[in-house]
Amino acid sequence: MIEHALLRDIKKDLKLVEIELNYYVDAPIQPLADSSAHLLRAGGKRLRPAFALLAAKFGEYSLDKLLPLAVSLELIHMASLVHDDVVDESLTRRGRPTVRAQWDNRVSIHTGDYLFAKSLILISQYEDARVAQVLSQVSVKMCQGEIEQISTAFDAQQHLKDYFYRIKRKTALLISASCQLGSIVSGASDEIVKGLTFYGYYLGMAFQITDDILDMIADEAELGKPVGSDLRQGIVTLPVIYALKHSDKREELLEILVDRRKGQPAVLRAIEIVKGCEAIDYSFNISEKYLEKAKKQLDVLPNIKTKRTLQRIADFINIRRY
Amino acid sequence: MIEHALLRDIKKDLKLVEIELNYYVDAPIQPLADSSAHLLRAGGKRLRPAFALLAAKFGEYSLDKLLPLAVSLELIHMASLVHDDVVDESLTRRGRPTVRAQWDNRVSIHTGDYLFAKSLILISQYEDARVAQVLSQVSVKMCQGEIEQISTAFDAQQHLKDYFYRIKRKTALLISASCQLGSIVSGASDEIVKGLTFYGYYLGMAFQITDDILDMIADEAELGKPVGSDLRQGIVTLPVIYALKHSDKREELLEILVDRRKGQPAVLRAIEIVKGCEAIDYSFNISEKYLEKAKKQLDVLPNIKTKRTLQRIADFINIRRY
Repeated sequence: MIEHALLRDIKKDLKLVEIELNYYVDAPIQPLADSSAHLLRAGGKRLRPAFALLAAKFGEYSLDKLLPLAVSLELIHMASLVHDDVVDESLTRRGRPTVRAQWDNRVSIHTGDYLFAKSLILISQYEDARVAQVLSQVSVKMCQGEIEQISTAFDAQQHLKDYFYRIKRKTALLISASCQLGSIVSGASDEIVKGLTFYGYYLGMAFQITDDILDMIADEAELGKPVGSDLRQGIVTLPVIYALKHSDKREELLEILVDRRKGQPAVLRAIEIVKGCEAIDYSFNISEKYLEKAKKQLDVLPNIKTKRTLQRIADFINIRRY
Repeated sequence: MIEHALLRDIKKDLKLVEIELNYYVDAPIQPLADSSAHLLRAGGKRLRPAFALLAAKFGEYSLDKLLPLAVSLELIHMASLVHDDVVDESLTRRGRPTVRAQWDNRVSIHTGDYLFAKSLILISQYEDARVAQVLSQVSVKMCQGEIEQISTAFDAQQHLKDYFYRIKRKTALLISASCQLGSIVSGASDEIVKGLTFYGYYLGMAFQITDDILDMIADEAELGKPVGSDLRQGIVTLPVIYALKHSDKREELLEILVDRRKGQPAVLRAIEIVKGCEAIDYSFNISEKYLEKAKKQLDVLPNIKTKRTLQRIADFINIRRY
């Protein structure tokens, strides 16, 4: 998602985050150590630590002060992935078998709990109470988003606001918190913190919308998971909401969506229907609007190199469209 | 476990804890609100809040300061119960269907996460960093204990130290933290905090040992769950470790223990074997030793009424033996 070149500024520091992350997921118990190490090897973009470091450039940047935050953000993200894997009953993530598939459902639950609890140890080091307050609030909301996603699955009666409610909690709030806390920890001014908080929020919304689009238009190799996995699980994303309203084959789409036992051919047919109306373009446009809002927030920031990096990151998110 | 009369001192305040607890588990999303409310109605002894309040009597007792702690301790406990229910695949707890049985496995995972995250919001209110530090450390260890319990299930090659390792993490550390933090929040002296921390630890060990004994000798009505549920799940408790070493029918016991598909008649036969040697008495004696250690810790405490309450609680834990 984010080009390597964009992160040149913080590349070395992200490597140190990775080393710390390795240290923190290490566990004295074999199945826990195995499953955590497996998760780490699966990689990931370390997007949340990256945003925390970038945001910190707008204050007094100190890696020592940032490391616990950066690691804890990734741990919270990993913990939620592990629990989602149990929930989704998905067998691959990023092209590798999930913890769930390789170990036992129960180990997944406690591995997620373990990673989350480890993040708290790091968070509790900060004297500034806002770090713990923001992250606990976000964690509560992330759970709400997950539950909402489960309870609305296979439900075709969904509106835009239901979708935005979910992706805000599922993705945008933690990215927003990464920007917010990175700048708070480095002592940036309230105005800068606010700008970065909203930048992260709008960018996170666009990021999830793009992800949901890619789940339909990318191929399995790019995705690292089967195409149309949201549809298969009955998760109603933005393109589907549009198509259910505007496609001339909306009744066929509806029928596929609500079928809990649909096979891959039905999923592919549904994707064809979604692609056949303006749903993908419409969704990219919404994402684009969020990205514009994100970039607008940067106006309040001083004109340092990282400001341009944040602009380019926003430009980059939709680039796969063209 | 703890007689009503023993808690007379803090009875009113425990009711306020209950009201706060109701407030905090309330959720804006239906399945979450339902499953949380269900958990609350299932009751429970509110043992951890009770210990926090009792411990606070040795400092400057202020319910306002204690409430967030008391509620968060119970939330952490509830969260771990919910995740255990997924893990244990048990269908009843305290005589009521578990969240797992009434709702979906996935809702259980996120309900647990939600309750835990809610506890963090409360914890992050404390300026004293020790509150968050102790509870995050304990949470990490609770996960280790759970994973260890899963990975050692159906394994007959276990020693006392494996059992103590598990029950320390599963039960004793959170009870210890309840006593420790109750006294810390009320500003008690370091000596008193230390005494209460160890009191809670030893008492928690005895509490879990007694629980494990009761799982074999009590009846379903008392337990609120079927007799021998540990044995059925392959969880090797203290009486079983003793019997596997000393019973003249140890080979038959071993065979039943490691059978993952045993029925209730086999479980009952195993219990008969355990009861047939000195295993139950032996286990009560170990519990008794922990209780003596717990009471010894009280020596450093000033001679207020609550000191006698804590002594009586320790006396009470083994009383069902006679």
